Amino acid sequence: MSTLILTNVRPWGGDPVDLVIDGDVIADSAPAGARPAGSGPDVPRSIDGAGLLALPGFVNAHAHLDKSWWGLPWVPYRGEPTGEGRIAHERAERDALGIPSLSSTIAVLREFLRHGTTAVRSHVDVDLGVGLRGIDTVRRAVAALDGAIQVEIVAFPQDGVVRRPGVLRLLDEAAAAGARLIGGIDPAGIDRDPVGQLDGIFDIAERRGVGLDIHVHDGGELGAFQYELIIERTLATGLQGAVTISHGFALGQVSPARQAQLLDRLGEAGIGWATVAPPGTAALPWRGMRERAIPIGLGTDGVRDLWSPYGDGDMLRIALGFARLHGLRTDADLTEAVRLAGCHAGGFVHRERHDLVPGARADIVLLDAENVPDALVRVPDREIVIAGGRLVVADGDLVI
Amino acid sequence: MSTLILTNVRPWGGDPVDLVIDGDVIADSAPAGARPAGSGPDVPRSIDGAGLLALPGFVNAHAHLDKSWWGLPWVPYRGEPTGEGRIAHERAERDALGIPSLSSTIAVLREFLRHGTTAVRSHVDVDLGVGLRGIDTVRRAVAALDGAIQVEIVAFPQDGVVRRPGVLRLLDEAAAAGARLIGGIDPAGIDRDPVGQLDGIFDIAERRGVGLDIHVHDGGELGAFQYELIIERTLATGLQGAVTISHGFALGQVSPARQAQLLDRLGEAGIGWATVAPPGTAALPWRGMRERAIPIGLGTDGVRDLWSPYGDGDMLRIALGFARLHGLRTDADLTEAVRLAGCHAGGFVHRERHDLVPGARADIVLLDAENVPDALVRVPDREIVIAGGRLVVADGDLVI
Repeated sequence: MSTLILTNVRPWGGDPVDLVIDGDVIADSAPAGARPAGSGPDVPRSIDGAGLLALPGFVNAHAHLDKSWWGLPWVPYRGEPTGEGRIAHERAERDALGIPSLSSTIAVLREFLRHGTTAVRSHVDVDLGVGLRGIDTVRRAVAALDGAIQVEIVAFPQDGVVRRPGVLRLLDEAAAAGARLIGGIDPAGIDRDPVGQLDGIFDIAERRGVGLDIHVHDGGELGAFQYELIIERTLATGLQGAVTISHGFALGQVSPARQAQLLDRLGEAGIGWATVAPPGTAALPWRGMRERAIPIGLGTDGVRDLWSPYGDGDMLRIALGFARLHGLRTDADLTEAVRLAGCHAGGFVHRERHDLVPGARADIVLLDAENVPDALVRVPDREIVIAGGRLVVADGDLVI
Repeated sequence: MSTLILTNVRPWGGDPVDLVIDGDVIADSAPAGARPAGSGPDVPRSIDGAGLLALPGFVNAHAHLDKSWWGLPWVPYRGEPTGEGRIAHERAERDALGIPSLSSTIAVLREFLRHGTTAVRSHVDVDLGVGLRGIDTVRRAVAALDGAIQVEIVAFPQDGVVRRPGVLRLLDEAAAAGARLIGGIDPAGIDRDPVGQLDGIFDIAERRGVGLDIHVHDGGELGAFQYELIIERTLATGLQGAVTISHGFALGQVSPARQAQLLDRLGEAGIGWATVAPPGTAALPWRGMRERAIPIGLGTDGVRDLWSPYGDGDMLRIALGFARLHGLRTDADLTEAVRLAGCHAGGFVHRERHDLVPGARADIVLLDAENVPDALVRVPDREIVIAGGRLVVADGDLVI
């Protein structure tokens, strides 16, 4: 097993250490310069961390890797400005653009790596038009990068389940073929049948032993009602710890008393929350969620796709957006926002431990910042990124 | 007068042109390569624009240049999380940090230039503690940069007017000493006397022939009521076209019917709007404002100061924030967001014409982007910046 020493880095802005990496795992951490240098043919390879700030690789807990047109000439958005309009626009245009595209998916994954993201949970469209082709595309893209970035796939019925007979069967096939999560989308707002959609996907999850990650954009009490339906089914099926609600805007919209009631039940059901913290949405009761150990993951959502031209794939900037949306100002809170984009989100990609500690996967990001809050508010370039023990960014440039 | 030719640039993403700059003004624009190269000692100096996208210099319509601690070691935020808490925190801590600081103000102006901002409207605190010292500091900082960046000063009573007897006299002195604008702040929420504050500052504006730029954070109908008071006084004093409301969050909060009523009256009074489009605030009715020719300016607000650690001084990123907050997606709308950060905001710094056209000040930003929407959503580094005909950024680095 090859050994690599990353010298003189400051984990979370603390005192400088040398990190010893064996294969794809962090094996040891010691004060910088304390280890004997060794000599002869057994001297391990080393990289000079130059006193840079070190963070664990970012975890993108909500992406749509299959949708992007990254790398193509600019595609103007021409759909209607509604959720249904975006779905229709995507379905009408994607074939002509070759979406899902292996090259665009690889390009997006490379942008993620360039910005220090080393693990992703990605929704991948499954519908009557594309079938399971998107999942195959994403798997091939991940393989093309030789495992540098880890991707967990959610088989995602973007266009609905109940209203599109045949999609449930496709989701079931995806689970049988190895997808670790099944998705859902606005059981009320899109499918017009909340019980029908939820019963369908919970049935697959229970039978196949997979998790669920359900988009709920529906607002106010309509959203909150669907959280309750999800909570009830999570408890009934014993899927505590395996269910995520994505976006979940309504949680920020209802009254504080209703929030507290929902948080207690979400905590009881072990349901996690993935947010991309868009400007203009209501702040989430994130402190109450942390107090109840409700997992929070941050994500990019789609990047430059037929839904939206936005996105650069930088999770540190998503953390900054979360911090600004929630009005965070103290050093402790700003640091917590960065932890949400990294070590706190390991569960979204099935990692028990995700930090700069022995035993964790060697996913390490170095940047030139005074401390973590400084890194968050300035979002400097990533100077060095190590993913699974491999050097993927050096001097700010991708080297894979 | 020295001549400089900027060759092969794409204004607003259009066909490549050569821009001829005489002194600090754009003198001519011609299709790239169409001009004879000339020869002999009269050949003007030229810079190769390499086909980059060209935009006019950004206008920062709302800054607080005097407040920053940019360049000092990180200063954790320790105030209370309220407006009054931030004012108190700033007043308690600023002296120990040497704020207002000449070196920090220069550092912030340099960051603005590095990101392509070439003109700024800056509020500068005027109060019983600091007197007019902040204004003097900002003027010296601008002079130290030898006019590369133009700054228009608003003498700003951050800590109130009515509740701080003596401040009105200081504002009057500032106007007499050349400040072109006088500020105000939450006449109701902070000063507890909306009529008292507004009558006081309108009196100065009328007597001294200066403009007004009034911070109104107060929300809902309390904010809207104060807009009405400002409209009434603007019409009564004949100050149409010389009054700006900054932030003005309430305009996004009231009902569409109330918005329409206010917009009609704001348009009639020629009152402009400066916004920093913070995440979590309500979208402004910006289309209705544009239809009524209500000037809209974007700004950074404070950058790394005792109010907030946020900010990197990049106006293109502020435009992106505005676009995202307002859900813009089409190319036309994304381009409009960039225009708000530049050519549409010339009036905020007393410019009749601010664009890449003959006769305008030679403030030019070049960046590597396919088109304007691509530049907005990716926010690439500024490769070249010319400010008042001077090269200030080359190859992405400040050269002044």
